[in-house]
Amino acid sequence: MTSPAATPEPPYYAVIFTALQTDDLEGYADMVALMQASARDQPGYLGMEAAEADRFEVTVSYWRDLDAIAAWKRHLDHLSAQRLGRGRWYATYRVRIARVERAYGFDAGG
Amino acid sequence: MTSPAATPEPPYYAVIFTALQTDDLEGYADMVALMQASARDQPGYLGMEAAEADRFEVTVSYWRDLDAIAAWKRHLDHLSAQRLGRGRWYATYRVRIARVERAYGFDAGG
Repeated sequence: MTSPAATPEPPYYAVIFTALQTDDLEGYADMVALMQASARDQPGYLGMEAAEADRFEVTVSYWRDLDAIAAWKRHLDHLSAQRLGRGRWYATYRVRIARVERAYGFDAGG
Repeated sequence: MTSPAATPEPPYYAVIFTALQTDDLEGYADMVALMQASARDQPGYLGMEAAEADRFEVTVSYWRDLDAIAAWKRHLDHLSAQRLGRGRWYATYRVRIARVERAYGFDAGG
């Protein structure tokens, strides 16, 4: 989570989740850990990148295709993480599903 | 930057930038401010969301189309921010260009 994800060549999909948190973050860290673990266990999961500061969170997860994203969402719904999080931990959030068409990068010394 | 961007209905494009910073961050804040200001001035700019913690940065900018992204990139190249940043402030970075196909969200009390 603290370095760029090692994704394959495009195309693949990204779920861009951005949220403004509330002041009530009891249980939040456990929910995040559960969501991350459940993502890693899903078929088609390619990686995740996240950072948060000043109660603003940006998390991007990468997936092989839309079916993999749909299956993860069903799994989350089952965990109730979405329902719980919506009212308690998040004042506002956005989910954007996007098809990654091109990727490039840089590694020092690489 | 500390709340989700107010983007229009999809489709539109996202530039997902993730980077691991070096220890040498002299001038970094000025470069970020310059990049953000230059994005806001570009035609087709729709918004930006960013967070960083533990030297890991996730910044997502939104654009009307690929032409707007290409024009912004040319502008950044002119500013030399990319060239400067590559060796000095970033140990590793990734840029992913993605077409946002679907978006939804939640606002407390909304």
